[in-house]
Amino acid sequence: MTYDPKTTRLLSFAEAAPKFRDGTDSPRAFLERCLEVIARRDNEVKAFVRMDAERARRAADESAARYKAGRPLSAVDGMPFGVKDMFDTADMDTEMGTPFHRGRRPMFDAAHVDALKRGGAVLVGKTVTSQFAVAGPGPTRNPFDPARSPGATSAGSAAAVGAAMIPVATGSHTRGSVIRPAGYCANFALKATFGALNRGGIMTATRSTDHLGIHAGALADLWATAWQIATVAGGDPGHPGLYGRPELPPARKPIRLIRIETRGWGLTDAASQAAFLALIETLRRDGIEIADRASDPAVADYENTLHEVSPNWGALATWESRWPMRLYRERDARLLHPAIAERVAAGEKMTLDEYRRALAFQAAIRRQHASFAGAADAFVTLSAPGPAPFGDDVGDAVYNEPSSLLGAPALNLPLLAVSGMPLGVQLLGFDHRDWELAGIGRWLAERVLG
Amino acid sequence: MTYDPKTTRLLSFAEAAPKFRDGTDSPRAFLERCLEVIARRDNEVKAFVRMDAERARRAADESAARYKAGRPLSAVDGMPFGVKDMFDTADMDTEMGTPFHRGRRPMFDAAHVDALKRGGAVLVGKTVTSQFAVAGPGPTRNPFDPARSPGATSAGSAAAVGAAMIPVATGSHTRGSVIRPAGYCANFALKATFGALNRGGIMTATRSTDHLGIHAGALADLWATAWQIATVAGGDPGHPGLYGRPELPPARKPIRLIRIETRGWGLTDAASQAAFLALIETLRRDGIEIADRASDPAVADYENTLHEVSPNWGALATWESRWPMRLYRERDARLLHPAIAERVAAGEKMTLDEYRRALAFQAAIRRQHASFAGAADAFVTLSAPGPAPFGDDVGDAVYNEPSSLLGAPALNLPLLAVSGMPLGVQLLGFDHRDWELAGIGRWLAERVLG
Repeated sequence: MTYDPKTTRLLSFAEAAPKFRDGTDSPRAFLERCLEVIARRDNEVKAFVRMDAERARRAADESAARYKAGRPLSAVDGMPFGVKDMFDTADMDTEMGTPFHRGRRPMFDAAHVDALKRGGAVLVGKTVTSQFAVAGPGPTRNPFDPARSPGATSAGSAAAVGAAMIPVATGSHTRGSVIRPAGYCANFALKATFGALNRGGIMTATRSTDHLGIHAGALADLWATAWQIATVAGGDPGHPGLYGRPELPPARKPIRLIRIETRGWGLTDAASQAAFLALIETLRRDGIEIADRASDPAVADYENTLHEVSPNWGALATWESRWPMRLYRERDARLLHPAIAERVAAGEKMTLDEYRRALAFQAAIRRQHASFAGAADAFVTLSAPGPAPFGDDVGDAVYNEPSSLLGAPALNLPLLAVSGMPLGVQLLGFDHRDWELAGIGRWLAERVLG
Repeated sequence: MTYDPKTTRLLSFAEAAPKFRDGTDSPRAFLERCLEVIARRDNEVKAFVRMDAERARRAADESAARYKAGRPLSAVDGMPFGVKDMFDTADMDTEMGTPFHRGRRPMFDAAHVDALKRGGAVLVGKTVTSQFAVAGPGPTRNPFDPARSPGATSAGSAAAVGAAMIPVATGSHTRGSVIRPAGYCANFALKATFGALNRGGIMTATRSTDHLGIHAGALADLWATAWQIATVAGGDPGHPGLYGRPELPPARKPIRLIRIETRGWGLTDAASQAAFLALIETLRRDGIEIADRASDPAVADYENTLHEVSPNWGALATWESRWPMRLYRERDARLLHPAIAERVAAGEKMTLDEYRRALAFQAAIRRQHASFAGAADAFVTLSAPGPAPFGDDVGDAVYNEPSSLLGAPALNLPLLAVSGMPLGVQLLGFDHRDWELAGIGRWLAERVLG
């Protein structure tokens, strides 16, 4: 399956939903089409760790009845969705990719799963995650080339959406786990502002930089999903939640974008560099000002700060492994992925003062990032240093770590292709301006994808 | 048991520990003295919901061996402690005061329990909590008068320390659940700066204002416990943790204290008002400047803001009940305390915008509070509008809500008595200056208690 940005189209629920009212389509029929694709492709792609088709069918039928009665519950009523197996579900086990939690059945749905179900969305299944969303890729393959990885750690969610099995899946992003696999699998994906989407019922090894993310085949579904979560579950306790309006914003042509290189550019292969530079050139010809380290000394300064992101992200993750990751290791070290065990060992040697230094860096880079808010619409980079790698190599989060530490919203757009594989473009916005970022993303998608 | 601030002394572990080295005392002997008091008094006080004396004895013996070898693990090595039954413990059930969690055995110790055990502290048992630390008092009685309440919701922890059963117990404070019962039970207690003590493994209905707190019979133990948690478990992810030094600060005489009335003063009985005013007069005679609403217009302004705390605290708690409290109600409404069910019903009618208004109020009052940081050492109030009430009345959190919304550190000092019952004095400090606040508290305690 070759990816062609001009012609490849993944699932869009929003396009189908209007037909549910006049009966020319139905949530049940939509679901059956999803299940057919899953039946045909998931033997190879292995996006799902478990499914419950019968329960999904019942939920879809209930949704169909609501549309018939002219009373859908929300914009996502009847929408099939997948949930990363890091997130609690009361009617399906939640194993977090680890034998420690084999057969674990949570008491309640995670806050965002509950919010989507209350809006009538139809839970299809749980998607493959790395161990604790940290390390150890699962069996999932890239839907555009089974020889390649879908990325990690939200591998199953990205692949299920990329294979057009389902229109929407949820994922989590602590370092790069939403934007990178979304880029490898041609998803639209949003890692919302830190705390903007409620993480209740989500276990995470590094809570200070973990974000709930949304993978979708179409921007309208992405936003409708985010909005449903925000209005029913809100953000994390103490956070104001997602700002914006219920509907996807109109396309908004940016006036000034900042192209940042980060450490990623030097690691990016030549074909991917060329594809990205061609896009930048197109945008310039459209009259969009593109600032970069060469043209703007403030950007050059910022690039220097960005080079410090990786060790500081690492310090946060390492300190936070002291609880509960250390306890897993003590329970049975053999069951823990070596990369996690290594992090735990490093965390044991760390001091609270070292953690504070990383937090101070985080606070400083957030201020520096925010200082561009009046001077640009968004930052733009690739989502990964190339298309999906082969085998079990899940790729490099180098382009994604900044958004994790910053907490600023990030959007993957499936704008480019290299060797027939998707190459994602990442927009990085400003805190709480997720809706605006979606509008800029929409403009770029309409401009490039047609 | 009459409370006399001059003569009543609760347990102090720090006083005993030096004798563990020369063998004139031992952690095991200290524990046995605790178990004797528990055996004698807990039939009436009912502070513990479950205990494991044999496991505690084994831990105390291991600690004794470390002292004998001259290698105690920390300042709390061998210290018996209790844990509010809201907090996960891997070797004892954790039921949160609700039948929903009968027999629930967590996989791991909560972060702070783990930190204390790693320092060699000896877990004695789990203490009584209200349902989900929200409503529905347990069977616990006030150790100074069984006809009276110990307060809520950390009732068991406050009563166990007040009855001199154990030197230290942990509690949680979302609205007033540490400082108020500590005041009723003559504990020293610290509700640390928001996020300064790791809440991993703690379920809470209102996470945005929930704090881990420490109940102790003596200030030195209080600080040693807080320090052990901070250095091993740190603060919440993303928070810098508790600042200060390992040892209790030297007594520090304040130069200027701000006496605030809050809504509480009008609800305070005459005898308690008189006792508090006599203390204020003593402090004035000592040369400490006491500012109040009459003497300082900035304080008068602040008092006006404080009157808005209660509805805004309520809005936070109400919105946050949408998950997971609503799911408990849907699981089985009969098992949920009516006060919680009522909050859930109110939360269903609330909008995210209303929640945001409460967050905006919280941000504003935090700024107003912080503006006094250069102008005073601390704020001073009573911890409750009188001594512990009779029967099942758990008292009023009116003096405690400000600290919950502010996140600033609060300290209860058992300085006063009315009708032979403890009447706590509350110091309210400034973010991250918990250690300084402990120094001021130490000065007041030495001045008043001798």
